[in-house]
Amino acid sequence: MQVKIVEVGPRDGLQNEKQPVTLAGKLELIQRLAASGLTHIEAGAFVSPRWVPQMADSADVLAALDLAGPVHYPVLVPNEKGLDAALAAGAREIAVFGAASESFSRHNLNMGINDSLSAFAAVTRRALDAGLRVRGYVSCVLGCPYEGEIAPSQVARVAAALREMGCYEISLGDTIGTGTPNRVHEMLAAVRKQVPATQLAGHFHDSYGMAIANITAALQMGVHTFDSSVAGLGGCPYARGASGNVATEDVLWLLQGMGLQTGVDLRQVVDAAWFISDLLGKMPVSRVAHALGRSPHAVARG
Amino acid sequence: MQVKIVEVGPRDGLQNEKQPVTLAGKLELIQRLAASGLTHIEAGAFVSPRWVPQMADSADVLAALDLAGPVHYPVLVPNEKGLDAALAAGAREIAVFGAASESFSRHNLNMGINDSLSAFAAVTRRALDAGLRVRGYVSCVLGCPYEGEIAPSQVARVAAALREMGCYEISLGDTIGTGTPNRVHEMLAAVRKQVPATQLAGHFHDSYGMAIANITAALQMGVHTFDSSVAGLGGCPYARGASGNVATEDVLWLLQGMGLQTGVDLRQVVDAAWFISDLLGKMPVSRVAHALGRSPHAVARG
Repeated sequence: MQVKIVEVGPRDGLQNEKQPVTLAGKLELIQRLAASGLTHIEAGAFVSPRWVPQMADSADVLAALDLAGPVHYPVLVPNEKGLDAALAAGAREIAVFGAASESFSRHNLNMGINDSLSAFAAVTRRALDAGLRVRGYVSCVLGCPYEGEIAPSQVARVAAALREMGCYEISLGDTIGTGTPNRVHEMLAAVRKQVPATQLAGHFHDSYGMAIANITAALQMGVHTFDSSVAGLGGCPYARGASGNVATEDVLWLLQGMGLQTGVDLRQVVDAAWFISDLLGKMPVSRVAHALGRSPHAVARG
Repeated sequence: MQVKIVEVGPRDGLQNEKQPVTLAGKLELIQRLAASGLTHIEAGAFVSPRWVPQMADSADVLAALDLAGPVHYPVLVPNEKGLDAALAAGAREIAVFGAASESFSRHNLNMGINDSLSAFAAVTRRALDAGLRVRGYVSCVLGCPYEGEIAPSQVARVAAALREMGCYEISLGDTIGTGTPNRVHEMLAAVRKQVPATQLAGHFHDSYGMAIANITAALQMGVHTFDSSVAGLGGCPYARGASGNVATEDVLWLLQGMGLQTGVDLRQVVDAAWFISDLLGKMPVSRVAHALGRSPHAVARG
């Protein structure tokens, strides 16, 4: 069976790293990830550079990539202004980012869920009309920093709305990483009534070490697409409440062990993890990068 | 439903830390763990101090503990000489440590599996005659550093032999941490034919980040006892092939989230994790200790 990995390190990961990465560094990271066999690599975000300086060069990133090739390079777009910029940069795929928590939506997007869905619908319609693919994110699907637990029915409602407006895939995010496998089962049981599992993705954060178990639970529920971040970019193991994405290499270890196909070369991903970690001057936030270590080639370079 | 945690940090954990811990430090750690509600705390090993200097003070540790109280303090005993020392120190429970891999047994114990089982049978008989409880470990149940994969039938054979000789519980160890949930299912399906799940424990290492998923799989197979190590003692996230036990606090987060009872206070375990990590001059190797952080009290002390 085939499992799709959506690599979010160059966007969701780097966006949450304090240390800036040069354009050349980003491009080498993305090139390495594509060479490993990853076919979906989130490459940037068209957001205010005042708020997210790490993504200020997203148009330059896209300009250097083969956007007509076999690898998808989605970019995050929060609103119509962002869409204009993404279209101008030649993006072929965008992602919109909603929340299952009313409070989180108001804190993060400055509007409630219903207003955000209206805004996303306008963005999505224009993007679809321009021939783009649109992916939808739902955050806080297993918990919210303001509200605590989130009702599965609420997640299902937001996911259904995103699908209804034309998102080809809905990525369900455990943004604070507090979820456990039983809650993944409950949440997905509710969401699957609205959106087929083939159109769902799991986006698990490893803040509490639950991500691999939650992915296993989602696989049991028929989800076969997972977001992950090379080297666990965006998380810090030594900061309180760090909420990094699960590391791509840890997910690959799980999937390989379970006999599932991804088309991705684990060794190349681990090498990419060490490459970007060296650039950031930190250690990979993953178990597998450390267990497998640097490749002899990489050591020779260092 | 009740799940039993066997805390192995003061033995299996500290035995694999380079930095020595004073007797007073060990005793405060054990006292904190007992205060958190843990009822099974592996407290030492009667092995050659030349090979394992970290355990040289195990008799002193036992002398300071209430061995007749409600908390069990098993100690590892490799042979009859070790049993003599354990009996002299007043131990009420011992553990013997076998392997499911012939090569690992020869490397680690200097004898093959069958010879090791004969030796354990003699030790176990004397211990039982003296009124002790005996726990059996089987290592390499999901993989061996020398042989690679291990047949589930081989694990079942060793587990059955340990039960036959009188071990009240058999702890199945993924010593190198390479296993994935599907292999946990396969292995336990074989072992359960020989030993009831109620007499089995899971002992998972988190070297590849799979431990929490593997525990979830073992729960699904009816296992309700798990070994873990506060702060992930014994492992190092930044060393190649580091093979630390899964952290007790990460296991507790999983079990609490799943609505399972342990009788253990998570906050007190996290405080113990920071306490021993400070003593060792390192960071906890767990996600939850970092996600929850130090308690305000501990910060004030620091």
